[in-house]
Amino acid sequence: MLRVAVAGGAGYIGGELLRLLLGHPRVDVALATSDSLAGRRVDGPHPNLRGRTDLTFVRHGELADRQGSYDVLFLALPHKKTMGAMAGYLDLARTVIDLSGDFRLRDPEVYARYYGTAHTAPELLGGFTTGLPEQHRDALRTSDRISVPGCMATAGMLAVQPLADAGLLDGEVTVDARTGSSGSGVSAGEANLHAERSGAMRLFAPAGHRHEAEVAQASGLPVRMTATGVEAVRGVQVLCGVRLAGGAGGSEVRAAYRKAYEGERFVRLVAYRRGAYRLPEPKILSGSNYCDVGFAVGDGGRATLVGALDNLVKGGAGNAVQCLNVRFGWPEDTGLEFFGLHPN
Amino acid sequence: MLRVAVAGGAGYIGGELLRLLLGHPRVDVALATSDSLAGRRVDGPHPNLRGRTDLTFVRHGELADRQGSYDVLFLALPHKKTMGAMAGYLDLARTVIDLSGDFRLRDPEVYARYYGTAHTAPELLGGFTTGLPEQHRDALRTSDRISVPGCMATAGMLAVQPLADAGLLDGEVTVDARTGSSGSGVSAGEANLHAERSGAMRLFAPAGHRHEAEVAQASGLPVRMTATGVEAVRGVQVLCGVRLAGGAGGSEVRAAYRKAYEGERFVRLVAYRRGAYRLPEPKILSGSNYCDVGFAVGDGGRATLVGALDNLVKGGAGNAVQCLNVRFGWPEDTGLEFFGLHPN
Amino acid sequence: MLRVAVAGGAGYIGGELLRLLLGHPRVDVALATSDSLAGRRVDGPHPNLRGRTDLTFVRHGELADRQGSYDVLFLALPHKKTMGAMAGYLDLARTVIDLSGDFRLRDPEVYARYYGTAHTAPELLGGFTTGLPEQHRDALRTSDRISVPGCMATAGMLAVQPLADAGLLDGEVTVDARTGSSGSGVSAGEANLHAERSGAMRLFAPAGHRHEAEVAQASGLPVRMTATGVEAVRGVQVLCGVRLAGGAGGSEVRAAYRKAYEGERFVRLVAYRRGAYRLPEPKILSGSNYCDVGFAVGDGGRATLVGALDNLVKGGAGNAVQCLNVRFGWPEDTGLEFFGLHPN
Amino acid sequence: MLRVAVAGGAGYIGGELLRLLLGHPRVDVALATSDSLAGRRVDGPHPNLRGRTDLTFVRHGELADRQGSYDVLFLALPHKKTMGAMAGYLDLARTVIDLSGDFRLRDPEVYARYYGTAHTAPELLGGFTTGLPEQHRDALRTSDRISVPGCMATAGMLAVQPLADAGLLDGEVTVDARTGSSGSGVSAGEANLHAERSGAMRLFAPAGHRHEAEVAQASGLPVRMTATGVEAVRGVQVLCGVRLAGGAGGSEVRAAYRKAYEGERFVRLVAYRRGAYRLPEPKILSGSNYCDVGFAVGDGGRATLVGALDNLVKGGAGNAVQCLNVRFGWPEDTGLEFFGLHPN
Repeated sequence: MLRVAVAGGAGYIGGELLRLLLGHPRVDVALATSDSLAGRRVDGPHPNLRGRTDLTFVRHGELADRQGSYDVLFLALPHKKTMGAMAGYLDLARTVIDLSGDFRLRDPEVYARYYGTAHTAPELLGGFTTGLPEQHRDALRTSDRISVPGCMATAGMLAVQPLADAGLLDGEVTVDARTGSSGSGVSAGEANLHAERSGAMRLFAPAGHRHEAEVAQASGLPVRMTATGVEAVRGVQVLCGVRLAGGAGGSEVRAAYRKAYEGERFVRLVAYRRGAYRLPEPKILSGSNYCDVGFAVGDGGRATLVGALDNLVKGGAGNAVQCLNVRFGWPEDTGLEFFGLHPN
Repeated sequence: MLRVAVAGGAGYIGGELLRLLLGHPRVDVALATSDSLAGRRVDGPHPNLRGRTDLTFVRHGELADRQGSYDVLFLALPHKKTMGAMAGYLDLARTVIDLSGDFRLRDPEVYARYYGTAHTAPELLGGFTTGLPEQHRDALRTSDRISVPGCMATAGMLAVQPLADAGLLDGEVTVDARTGSSGSGVSAGEANLHAERSGAMRLFAPAGHRHEAEVAQASGLPVRMTATGVEAVRGVQVLCGVRLAGGAGGSEVRAAYRKAYEGERFVRLVAYRRGAYRLPEPKILSGSNYCDVGFAVGDGGRATLVGALDNLVKGGAGNAVQCLNVRFGWPEDTGLEFFGLHPN
Repeated sequence: MLRVAVAGGAGYIGGELLRLLLGHPRVDVALATSDSLAGRRVDGPHPNLRGRTDLTFVRHGELADRQGSYDVLFLALPHKKTMGAMAGYLDLARTVIDLSGDFRLRDPEVYARYYGTAHTAPELLGGFTTGLPEQHRDALRTSDRISVPGCMATAGMLAVQPLADAGLLDGEVTVDARTGSSGSGVSAGEANLHAERSGAMRLFAPAGHRHEAEVAQASGLPVRMTATGVEAVRGVQVLCGVRLAGGAGGSEVRAAYRKAYEGERFVRLVAYRRGAYRLPEPKILSGSNYCDVGFAVGDGGRATLVGALDNLVKGGAGNAVQCLNVRFGWPEDTGLEFFGLHPN
Repeated sequence: MLRVAVAGGAGYIGGELLRLLLGHPRVDVALATSDSLAGRRVDGPHPNLRGRTDLTFVRHGELADRQGSYDVLFLALPHKKTMGAMAGYLDLARTVIDLSGDFRLRDPEVYARYYGTAHTAPELLGGFTTGLPEQHRDALRTSDRISVPGCMATAGMLAVQPLADAGLLDGEVTVDARTGSSGSGVSAGEANLHAERSGAMRLFAPAGHRHEAEVAQASGLPVRMTATGVEAVRGVQVLCGVRLAGGAGGSEVRAAYRKAYEGERFVRLVAYRRGAYRLPEPKILSGSNYCDVGFAVGDGGRATLVGALDNLVKGGAGNAVQCLNVRFGWPEDTGLEFFGLHPN
């Protein structure tokens, strides 16, 4: 059994990591840290884990004290706070899988522009592999520094990249992202009270969302993203407006997706003629590690590419576990078998 | 025009008072207080008021400084903090309408039991009239100290009282109350984040909810209330389990309600044979001052009485405005004409 | 009092017309038609009207039988079924206000392309005025044939038109529309069951939505619209991606909106720096006749224009009543005073 | 591998059976029937199964034609239609697990009273074992005729039975049940459209709900149940009001539950002092086979017992699969390992 530690286990991503890792047949959870909840049971903030674990949180400092008791370190810590401490983390565990935003962008200037602060460990940026197996599987097999992409970025990259790689896209990509409330985290403030957030269509990022930079970095194309909070707890959907190059149409798009995702366990092509679920719909993906991808071709060479996922699973913790599976040569869906629910 | 002041104007009840009072044709809103938002526009925390008012909040201390500039003082301040300051408020305005819980219970011992603290102004308790026009209209016509009942209590009292008054009830009343999230207020904590509260069936008061005492006080019957937060922003529904006295059945119950509520503008008897809305449903009452009341008679002399209302309107601010209308002899629905929406 | 008839009174738009017209101080509702519910009370399918009316539905054929008993005829009938009968309706009442899609597009070829069938009364198309007072007020003052625009089109036109008129837009407009479930109507099928539709992000129109043609017709610009059903009963929000012409930026955009909407009672410019409601949010507009309009300017001359409204009010019945008010010279907000609710 | 057939595979319970059985490591799904969807892919009405199966529906008549190709027959057919055909089903498969209501009540007179029609196969009633392993495990190990209880009944029985068995209850049990919309099934009508059902508190069964009879049958106590549809797709919660016998209090109640559920894999005692999840909450149970049980003791010997579950899993398909596991001697959680999600 591989021993893993989860740093930042009290948040939503941390809880989802614990859910998946506690159910993973090849992994033992050695410790989970939370300064604010140290000494308290893990199933306090994560009541879905009742009956499955007696683990208690330890203080964050225990990571260093108990070096050697874990092989893999998952970091579910806040953006901007992770980068400064990363050098230390890399000493603690053989493999580090980071879920913060701090090592997603390779160019420190881009980081500074999108995060509003200078990167404090730019020398480490190049050492991280993007934790998206569908696009970086070979590198992930041997990588011990993995940076898991943002939830909306993951959906966007999985929707856009096959067409970008096939040379089917021309010009700017617009990404209209919609997201549930869990993406704001457990420490979100008054604006995320139920009475304020319920039923909302809150355009919280009309321009310049950080995940935009990740899609641009991956695709090499100019990207414009807006992000709106809609009524859901889990779930991200992106609508990517693109211009198809060279007269390409639906059959070329379909072929490119098929080629890219043939044999992929967690990406399904969802582009049917009719039905309520003919295009990717996050509500049936909750808890699953799927990213459904679809498209619709309009007039004049324009197309809408669609991606949907559970922001805490394929958009975060599930993707991280998938990377773990790739890294250690296990079947990629180990611990990630859940189908998703319908109706839900 | 009557001049009114709203103390505690930044909360949800305060905002609803402002919505109703700004639309009331016989009233001028002279000032609204909020220490935390003093100097800020009223339509900041209450964005539905944009375009309707340029009012800004003033510090709470302005109530005293501007004595004489308002005739009626609405108090939308926290429970337990209102009672100590009440004597002062009574000096400031001719008419005081209190929406806190502090003057709802006439017996200070009952208050202490339900609020967990001794009442600090017990000598004032007797001077307040219960702000429920359907049951205290005559007294309200001349009362200048009005205490508006709690939201679940209002629904419970309107459902129970006609039968209690008619001698149709025997023994204990059980009240199963369900409520939307706005009842928790704008300063609710982490447990009321959207991700935690959305879709919940949260039994937050399995016994001894404060509003239980109000229904007991009004009816003279023993009352047991449970309260559950369900998915809604606005809306309260109570199911009152009762035993009918002396062989009474559906026709007696119906007759008692009809007699009690004939001519009442804001209480509708809703007890039909079929249809999705055959019994009181809060979702079509949002924004309206209605309390719908209905019933179903079961076997063995048992019946379920049902009440539904918008907790911020008939369960709070709307009821307060209705009291104002009664007190000043205006048509009772002045400023309260809104029908409610369907679908909604 | 003006006498009005509502044809198609059992649907959601019909119900909303009845809610507004029954509360309108200058109007008497003479009759409401529904073949399927003839003889039944109007407050059956519209339970929010209980206590406000004893009206019963009559068969549709009564419209002809009772000619002369009403002055204005509101048509809330299905698309494609209205056009063939329009000539007859025009004979029945002096003023006809149509809420179907059949007379919104002036060009029968465009109609055929978007509705999938030839227009059967093309000779009447030219006689209708677009029922959007903010853009056609003068014509509406004397028009007796009014075609109320589609809900998403209304939001789109109000967001786009001031900039189009000011010459600030360059090239294609993309419209990402999100809508609540009431837009699908009361006779929607299995796909709109709660269990299927709840929490959805259903991209039901990835290209070519009918309302796209209305925005294009009004603006003279190429328009691409996608439409997604999100979790809400009421509410439409549109995000319009545009390219600003000639180096225009935020101040020019703001100035154009201010100029267009100065003095407008039902359009508010909502574009603040911070806060959960800094851009247009439909959830606080339910029941109101507002269309909030806002914007955000990004890099490179791109901007996102935002419009939000209640699809049944400003996106339908409320807009129709506003047209009525304009036509008969009444204050434009007569019967439309409701503020909207927060929280909601 | 055991071969199973699912009769009535197109509905919500049928779909949930397919989800669980397709993921079950000891089972092959031999066929799934649906007359209306015969020839269509199973992942059409159940889009969460995309990528997991290529199965297509067969006509219901195939059950007889393909006798011998399956060992176990799950019946997810409508109430009242199952009983007449049961004798035939019993000939087709060695083991029959029925999820309809037709074989839940042992007394045909009680059946007639609650279902409004005479039972047409009363001679078969006695042969069925109640499919609730926590209460009938020994019988289920050898039973080939299993009747899975109703969703609200399951929650009620698991909450009430330990105390009833321990002699801790005195007199009538009142059950206030709340349920999500999926319980109404995929063929629900207009009243279950999203616009009507969203945010509802619909008291659809103010008295005499069918599941009441099941709890009464199991407990031997008089039971009164009301049932309300609240906003959720999945989820049932019951609040059971009871009177404790002989001065029993919280410690006796807790002891009785502990004794009853010690070692139970799918029943957790959830009765904490604080926290948003201190009592059973269905929203974190979606997709899982848990039934959480809790309680709160009030004054005067009254207590509220609480049960919560996912109506399609522990309240239906999951419970049926658990019975299968018991019957065939497999670990009881085979195929039922999913934890549930938080937040959700």
